[in-house]
Amino acid sequence: MDFGSDNAYGVLPQVMDALAHANRGAVRAYGGDPLTQGLTQSFSTLFGRAVAVHPVFTGTAANALALATVTPPHGAVICHARSHIMESECGAPEFYAHGAKLIGLEGPEEGPLAGKLTAAAIGAAIDALPRGFVHSVQPFAVSLSQPTELGTVYSLQELSQIAQAAHARGLKLHLDGARFANALAHLQASAAAATWQAGVDILSFGASKGGTMGAEAVVYFDPALAGDFEYRRKKGGHLASKMRFVSAQLEAYVEDGLWLQAAGRANGLALLMAEGLSRVNSITLPVPVQTNMVFARMPADLAARLRGAGAYFYDWRKETDGGVLARLATSFATPEEDVARFVALAAGKA
Amino acid sequence: MDFGSDNAYGVLPQVMDALAHANRGAVRAYGGDPLTQGLTQSFSTLFGRAVAVHPVFTGTAANALALATVTPPHGAVICHARSHIMESECGAPEFYAHGAKLIGLEGPEEGPLAGKLTAAAIGAAIDALPRGFVHSVQPFAVSLSQPTELGTVYSLQELSQIAQAAHARGLKLHLDGARFANALAHLQASAAAATWQAGVDILSFGASKGGTMGAEAVVYFDPALAGDFEYRRKKGGHLASKMRFVSAQLEAYVEDGLWLQAAGRANGLALLMAEGLSRVNSITLPVPVQTNMVFARMPADLAARLRGAGAYFYDWRKETDGGVLARLATSFATPEEDVARFVALAAGKA
Amino acid sequence: MDFGSDNAYGVLPQVMDALAHANRGAVRAYGGDPLTQGLTQSFSTLFGRAVAVHPVFTGTAANALALATVTPPHGAVICHARSHIMESECGAPEFYAHGAKLIGLEGPEEGPLAGKLTAAAIGAAIDALPRGFVHSVQPFAVSLSQPTELGTVYSLQELSQIAQAAHARGLKLHLDGARFANALAHLQASAAAATWQAGVDILSFGASKGGTMGAEAVVYFDPALAGDFEYRRKKGGHLASKMRFVSAQLEAYVEDGLWLQAAGRANGLALLMAEGLSRVNSITLPVPVQTNMVFARMPADLAARLRGAGAYFYDWRKETDGGVLARLATSFATPEEDVARFVALAAGKA
Amino acid sequence: MDFGSDNAYGVLPQVMDALAHANRGAVRAYGGDPLTQGLTQSFSTLFGRAVAVHPVFTGTAANALALATVTPPHGAVICHARSHIMESECGAPEFYAHGAKLIGLEGPEEGPLAGKLTAAAIGAAIDALPRGFVHSVQPFAVSLSQPTELGTVYSLQELSQIAQAAHARGLKLHLDGARFANALAHLQASAAAATWQAGVDILSFGASKGGTMGAEAVVYFDPALAGDFEYRRKKGGHLASKMRFVSAQLEAYVEDGLWLQAAGRANGLALLMAEGLSRVNSITLPVPVQTNMVFARMPADLAARLRGAGAYFYDWRKETDGGVLARLATSFATPEEDVARFVALAAGKA
Repeated sequence: MDFGSDNAYGVLPQVMDALAHANRGAVRAYGGDPLTQGLTQSFSTLFGRAVAVHPVFTGTAANALALATVTPPHGAVICHARSHIMESECGAPEFYAHGAKLIGLEGPEEGPLAGKLTAAAIGAAIDALPRGFVHSVQPFAVSLSQPTELGTVYSLQELSQIAQAAHARGLKLHLDGARFANALAHLQASAAAATWQAGVDILSFGASKGGTMGAEAVVYFDPALAGDFEYRRKKGGHLASKMRFVSAQLEAYVEDGLWLQAAGRANGLALLMAEGLSRVNSITLPVPVQTNMVFARMPADLAARLRGAGAYFYDWRKETDGGVLARLATSFATPEEDVARFVALAAGKA
Repeated sequence: MDFGSDNAYGVLPQVMDALAHANRGAVRAYGGDPLTQGLTQSFSTLFGRAVAVHPVFTGTAANALALATVTPPHGAVICHARSHIMESECGAPEFYAHGAKLIGLEGPEEGPLAGKLTAAAIGAAIDALPRGFVHSVQPFAVSLSQPTELGTVYSLQELSQIAQAAHARGLKLHLDGARFANALAHLQASAAAATWQAGVDILSFGASKGGTMGAEAVVYFDPALAGDFEYRRKKGGHLASKMRFVSAQLEAYVEDGLWLQAAGRANGLALLMAEGLSRVNSITLPVPVQTNMVFARMPADLAARLRGAGAYFYDWRKETDGGVLARLATSFATPEEDVARFVALAAGKA
Repeated sequence: MDFGSDNAYGVLPQVMDALAHANRGAVRAYGGDPLTQGLTQSFSTLFGRAVAVHPVFTGTAANALALATVTPPHGAVICHARSHIMESECGAPEFYAHGAKLIGLEGPEEGPLAGKLTAAAIGAAIDALPRGFVHSVQPFAVSLSQPTELGTVYSLQELSQIAQAAHARGLKLHLDGARFANALAHLQASAAAATWQAGVDILSFGASKGGTMGAEAVVYFDPALAGDFEYRRKKGGHLASKMRFVSAQLEAYVEDGLWLQAAGRANGLALLMAEGLSRVNSITLPVPVQTNMVFARMPADLAARLRGAGAYFYDWRKETDGGVLARLATSFATPEEDVARFVALAAGKA
Repeated sequence: MDFGSDNAYGVLPQVMDALAHANRGAVRAYGGDPLTQGLTQSFSTLFGRAVAVHPVFTGTAANALALATVTPPHGAVICHARSHIMESECGAPEFYAHGAKLIGLEGPEEGPLAGKLTAAAIGAAIDALPRGFVHSVQPFAVSLSQPTELGTVYSLQELSQIAQAAHARGLKLHLDGARFANALAHLQASAAAATWQAGVDILSFGASKGGTMGAEAVVYFDPALAGDFEYRRKKGGHLASKMRFVSAQLEAYVEDGLWLQAAGRANGLALLMAEGLSRVNSITLPVPVQTNMVFARMPADLAARLRGAGAYFYDWRKETDGGVLARLATSFATPEEDVARFVALAAGKA
């Protein structure tokens, strides 16, 4: 019963097959291979628009490189105070953007807006920075997590409003899509509608959490925005020599809607878990379950008992009443019986 | 007939099997998995000493992170003027070491010392920097490529002399071992003898060129030297979420001497090619062939004819007489018949 | 009537005399001169302890270099969300510390704690960072402004409590003392009592605002903490060639208590202004006046009228009721009649 | 007899007067003062063209900031291997340009080309970098020292040829003019002819060595090239709060040709010394004396004797024959009798 991370499980069988398939013959290194060359077409089709797509190994690299291409050293990025780029990347964006600043905005931790920022708050934060004033960093980008770190999903309208708030002030909108498939599966929207049609400029297209081995991509909806991305990627040590294997993963991941099926399964398991846990008296679910993460508030002794029975999960937060807010992540490969057993254990029935 | 790069071919079958084998069940992410935990033991056994070993995806990341842990921003690294870290990493070491300086020394391009530096030259270069003088960068590390970019291999004695020159002046010795297996196969020495016993402090242990998919490791022979490596790796975006798959590659690569067998095969093919080409009148081999690279000086029209017949290789240099110095790389998977055919073509017999 | 900044006025006559006096003969450049060599003794006497003192030209340089010597790239500095290092240095600390992070804590904007942080809040912020967790920046320093950006002064007890909170968690305590003389004049304490005896590790010793031309110093109370400061200063372009002139300013500034007399005068003028404005019905003073800055809330039309009459000052903040919070800064050279006239104008009597 | 550095002497009396004169009344801080505002006009007149001029405190800051505005992190700057930016700034350019690379070219150390680079060598060095190849840094700027570190002066024709070599390849031409006045005094050309008319894009306009206290300026002949200079200057901690005093120095320095008179005097003293030393049998002058530096090769015992008699100077180099190459710098304030006495001592007549 491993609900610790959607990185806990391995890779989709189709991805493993694609790697084996890619392991034939000699090709050009460093992205000169046919698989990498084909990615532009695949992703352009996927997004309904000519995009620039650049594979990297990790989500942190994708985010940091993406932001660095649009944020100079004296720039600032507006983001959520609890976002991954702010709290979980050891300052990678600041390193890649040579000392630029992330400005983190607080927001609700419970309810429908949990984990989200509003267009109004973002607009106000941008306006609070004195423009053209050399003593202050200058805002260049807004970065949102879609879904958020609390598993909630910005609606197309919310995205669009935020994009407008950003663009009206001359900023670019970046999405950290580490679990983008889960968001899209929830939204039931097209990849186009959920990105550039809503005003997104750059997407960190996550795939590792969704079932690849170590493959992410930075997608620029206006290829001109990519600027010197390729030099930054190389200078950061993120240019794969045998890139065909990274590209093969991405290709397999998006082929025939695999990514959305896998994400849909994970989302479904989370909903199943949420439904079960919602019937347990001592448990409350303060955050709406929209993707593959369930946040469950429970007494500490219940959390201990569940762990004692073999469940693995993180305490997102210690609560002031002595309880914990547990984060339970499901994935494309989480066994359905693990979810059922966890719910039964929580209900005292196993 | 692809002799362009040892990155042209895919991965060893044993590595692919190991990936499939690793793709089972749920494990801790970010290196908390058993495979990664086991690497320390495997590499300590391999090197006959308790080492710290840190997997990364690329050789550039390995080199840049390794050098940054021992070189502060006001530091300098002594290296060959034509080395990979100097010419082929787009300034990654300077980025990771926050503006430190690489000082490149010229050396012979032909003959037994081709691609190499001597202890005397290194000592003189270090001594030329005014120590404790705040206007000048201060030397902190020497970095050698083993084998060199010209495929030559430092003998254990050469290594040892350079290590002494470095250590006597307070510097650390780093090896860029992108093709370390090829060097070791040539030296017929133990991994211990070719590294820490000769005075090497840090090794960028290459594996991608040798037959893995995208796996390298930084090995510190004194684990205390690693310092804040893990934070630097994360801040650089090089911490793999599903690190088990990187570790599985490394484990399979070194298990039962696979790495040395694969490198031995590649070296053998290069020797075969060298023997064949040495019998062609219009071709000269100005650099001794010790690993998996053959440098062949030939008339431009011969190079063109070989390419016309389907051979792929780089022109390392245009010669002043209108000829080219071709670099021909073999790998663990290069077909032996490709070598034979290339030689025959060069000899005008095919 | 210039109350815009304590940088508005020039330099103290004693400082100008010292510059003229220093302009004699030939001396060693880059700090090898007798004046610079003597600073260590002067500042050690001033602080009652053997200190390391390093002159620079600007306060931003002093802060950024001071923090960089004790904060690695993966480190974090805890500071006030409205502090100068956070809001008014264009990200210089992040640049000098190679992408380290400032973590800004909010605090009251009015009343006795205006502009200050508490030991409890600082301790909680440090404890909120997961120590030894590679995904998170790690806390290395606490930085306070003394006096704060709102002109309030930490008491010796407050300082001491914060130092204990920092030290107990392994962090260093840095003071941004851009107006340190004003704080000390208020505290009526010795320089020793207000710094290292209260637990301060590093002081950005400000002098420009206090009456020098462009001279600040970084003071390390444990000289070993300075580490590679001198290389960082040179690499940042802050090593003065004719350093005698920077040192001469600092020497003159602290000689015979000049700095405290000058600050005492500025503080006294601010108190005078505060007393006068407190008698104006439409004005409130939400922040206690302890140094040389008066924050006065007034109707927008009054602010406009004052400006119309020749007063210069900043609007620190627009108030929601349409009024403004004006910041009025006095200095060592502000004419007393300007203060009197400003008060009279505000009271409608001029 | 101090010939150690042109930083050894203080400031010109006119500069000191200007500082005293600037020390009146209250003005806007951070460059909003009339003196700074007037610099643009003064320097535009001086150079016969509308320029952007930005004061800083040090030459290292000027060079590093100037190069960073035109060189991205993946960029390279072509310069002399023995240049100040390469050897005497502790890697400041690499720090400010975020890990960009300086590529140093060797050149003759004696004779008419001593210290200089040729257009041909620069062109070849640029062409040696594979353009658009992501593994290699890309060339963005050429930086020359005028005069060179050996005191020689590029002729207008040499400058022009180098500018053409740079521009034809898309690079900008930067001059490190730490001693620009000395070069101009030698050239007997207008400031316009010696800079933009010869193709120079950016000038680090030195003044400290020439007789100011600590004032340099970055001059962009196309103001659009300055880009985000002002943010970089602030982020680097080089924005002076009381900038009027920096600007006052610069204004006084260039007013009525003072800078050229002062430099002319220094150059004249160097020539006088050179003439005297050239008549001493044991001394040779391997570098033509064109500005304020004399390089004199002499036996070690003569150097020791001169030092014993009170002369101060640097050994630029130890010679292999046991002699030294002494660098003797004169300045605007070097007493003429010191030169005479030094020559007499060297000749054994004092």
